[in-house]
Amino acid sequence: MEANTGSVILFHNAVIITMDPQKRVFRNGGLVVEADRIKAIGQSAEIFHEFSAIAGELVDLNGRILLPGFVNTHVHTSQQLARGIADDVDLLTWLHERIWPYESNMTEEDSYISTLLCGIELIRSGVTCFAEAGGQHVSGMARAVELLGLRACLTQSTMDSGQGLPDHWGVHSTDYCIQSQKELYRKHHETADGRIRIWFGIRQIMNATDRLLLETRDAAKELNTGIHMHVAEIPYENQLVMDTQGVDHGTVTYLEKIELLQSNLLAAHSVWVNKSEIGFLSKAGVKVSHCPAAAMKMLGFAPVKEMLDAGICVSLGTDGAPSNNRMSIVDEMYLASLISKGREVYSKGTTNPTAMPAEVVLKMVTINGAKSVLWDNEIGSLEIGKKADMTIINPFSWSMIPLHDCISSLVYCMRTENIDSVMCNGQWIMKDQKILNVNEEKIISMAKQASGALLKRAGIRIPDRMNVL
Amino acid sequence: MEANTGSVILFHNAVIITMDPQKRVFRNGGLVVEADRIKAIGQSAEIFHEFSAIAGELVDLNGRILLPGFVNTHVHTSQQLARGIADDVDLLTWLHERIWPYESNMTEEDSYISTLLCGIELIRSGVTCFAEAGGQHVSGMARAVELLGLRACLTQSTMDSGQGLPDHWGVHSTDYCIQSQKELYRKHHETADGRIRIWFGIRQIMNATDRLLLETRDAAKELNTGIHMHVAEIPYENQLVMDTQGVDHGTVTYLEKIELLQSNLLAAHSVWVNKSEIGFLSKAGVKVSHCPAAAMKMLGFAPVKEMLDAGICVSLGTDGAPSNNRMSIVDEMYLASLISKGREVYSKGTTNPTAMPAEVVLKMVTINGAKSVLWDNEIGSLEIGKKADMTIINPFSWSMIPLHDCISSLVYCMRTENIDSVMCNGQWIMKDQKILNVNEEKIISMAKQASGALLKRAGIRIPDRMNVL
Repeated sequence: MEANTGSVILFHNAVIITMDPQKRVFRNGGLVVEADRIKAIGQSAEIFHEFSAIAGELVDLNGRILLPGFVNTHVHTSQQLARGIADDVDLLTWLHERIWPYESNMTEEDSYISTLLCGIELIRSGVTCFAEAGGQHVSGMARAVELLGLRACLTQSTMDSGQGLPDHWGVHSTDYCIQSQKELYRKHHETADGRIRIWFGIRQIMNATDRLLLETRDAAKELNTGIHMHVAEIPYENQLVMDTQGVDHGTVTYLEKIELLQSNLLAAHSVWVNKSEIGFLSKAGVKVSHCPAAAMKMLGFAPVKEMLDAGICVSLGTDGAPSNNRMSIVDEMYLASLISKGREVYSKGTTNPTAMPAEVVLKMVTINGAKSVLWDNEIGSLEIGKKADMTIINPFSWSMIPLHDCISSLVYCMRTENIDSVMCNGQWIMKDQKILNVNEEKIISMAKQASGALLKRAGIRIPDRMNVL
Repeated sequence: MEANTGSVILFHNAVIITMDPQKRVFRNGGLVVEADRIKAIGQSAEIFHEFSAIAGELVDLNGRILLPGFVNTHVHTSQQLARGIADDVDLLTWLHERIWPYESNMTEEDSYISTLLCGIELIRSGVTCFAEAGGQHVSGMARAVELLGLRACLTQSTMDSGQGLPDHWGVHSTDYCIQSQKELYRKHHETADGRIRIWFGIRQIMNATDRLLLETRDAAKELNTGIHMHVAEIPYENQLVMDTQGVDHGTVTYLEKIELLQSNLLAAHSVWVNKSEIGFLSKAGVKVSHCPAAAMKMLGFAPVKEMLDAGICVSLGTDGAPSNNRMSIVDEMYLASLISKGREVYSKGTTNPTAMPAEVVLKMVTINGAKSVLWDNEIGSLEIGKKADMTIINPFSWSMIPLHDCISSLVYCMRTENIDSVMCNGQWIMKDQKILNVNEEKIISMAKQASGALLKRAGIRIPDRMNVL
């Protein structure tokens, strides 16, 4: 028993849903954290007996639920200040009149504030790790993530071609795109006690030359990191790829052709993929981030059941605040199941209430999330030796009672209100619903001010929906 | 100024979304409640100047949002104790092995406790009025509603035919169905300071003889009240009606034929209706309760946009806890919009992000809800002379900031966490997130016990989803 008792925390009397390969659930379990890692897990009484003497802190969870921290695999943290600027408008208005003016007018400080605000929502949703979908100011994001105590794969949004971008924003050269990302990698990768990793980003195929695609592939391989890319979002994208690249379906088919489909690719959305493309993704070990709310609102119904059946690792993401607008992985769980059950009506004539059962959804936000961000050797399940990234849920409130089926209630009933405490890397980042490392009120106040100023600077006006007096 | 000052409350400095015919929104508004009704509404400064002297209570809302209380038009309050007993199972298992055994083993006390627990969730979702979908023990429900302080249209579930019902439950005679409802009407209609009304209920066409349908229609007309019925829920139902009644489509076509389609009919779900049936519903002034989560999970995508375009009054419901399982009208708002945007992909090839805009959804849960329960002369909008049924929302938290588009943020961002206070009939039923008329902790404890005992009595067993140790 060599441990420094000050750094050992013992949890007991918990329902522990491990999400380990044996799918173990301890009805009354115990778990020991030493420094940043899980040291022991088992029956509560046995754990208590063996470790209580060396524990610096004993936490009696009184039947509350202990889960791996959730992983949100597609988040635009820099779009948090844009929540509500582009609701109920068509896609072109969304992009050209709202999102591009917003993003192109952002400063690094805006991105920092936006990530702080987004981070609060992530933590309050039980998230301990996220994959940034790609923004402009990675250093601003990194500063916020370090402070919040979260774990993240941060990504710069790159575009070296494409039409309709704001003049003063412009498109960067391919060389700049690659070099600036390598620079970010050198500066931020494995910083914040190893909580921050830097990935490569490709905004989408319509804004990327072949050279950018191929050099990104090679650079990511060289640095042994991942690539985050929006893939097959809308039918128009696939059509454009077919027209310009002479392939017979769309983005995925083309990415297969140029050998970009590899196990380090995180393909966000992947809504418009056909059967052979599902085969390509599966064979290459590509990870898919399914974003249910954004899919319903903007993109379409991804063939998630078919992708899972084909053995693809599908995880869940919230997308950005102007696409959703709830940045809550808790709500995405609920939606993921409902959408998959409902869309069967179009292929079979009736919905399939057995499709996408709760235990599969829970896998998507934990171990599949960890695999998607290439971090499953350390997170995604509660196992000895893994990092102590955990979420504690209080199910004993009006929103979850009665609790006849604990697993399904986590997916169908749980609200963010039920998320009690969150630990990342062995450190509390929320305890008893209080965000610990940042001043929440101050961030809300900063966000109000910064977002108002940004919209003004960008010339974005939101029309009134009613008769405002 | 004849008012008793003790009963006058003045709200000021509020964003007031009236939902009145002029769609007025006061950016900085004031509103006066006298006893159970709204006495005045207008600009904050003017209202304050005119009424502050006679107000017994001044409430400075500091920019919070004042809305009509939401109306949930399809709720099985007696199914709240069954939350989680039938997730991810097929429809027959759902009905025969879970729901019918549950409902047929319920006591009046169970129904009372179930309605109390459900009522807490309704109030916490900003609901002030609901339409019960039909249960077995209306007196138990009425007792709970009176205590909670809510407004409700209560309905007995009636079945005088049908296959597969539990033996000891059995089917009642047509006469019993009608007489027992008349009895309930005499006992409970317009009780609890006029907050409770009694409606007639028809479970669904597959459990109703023609005589029951026709006598229900006539009895409701005689007593000048409404009829709540599950309509066109699944394709099988329509097929059965076509096979047995010789009509060319389904339930709605048959109800048109026997003249049951009238303006006092609240048709829940109405998922499987064709174009001519939409015409029938519209012409007759039938109200439709759309239940987005239950539709996705179990039934299919209702043609809500088409029904609204045809002038049908469509409102929103949560359905029962084993079908949803969040009994939150706040989440149903979000879902209603996402579903309508998403399903356009199947008719048009792409989603339509402009479909079902936020202001329409807000109408569905307020004035359309009031019309659906035949109570719009007194509730559903904030207007002088109407009942003081109101919900106060605090949008200044992490879940709704920034607030660039107040109306859309209510639909896309708001969580139950943002519901601050709720008033029904001029009385606070929740204030600063505290439920006032009942002891929430005690009800949760009663519900745990009663639901456990009920499942045991009914012999319902829920299989484990993981390896529980």
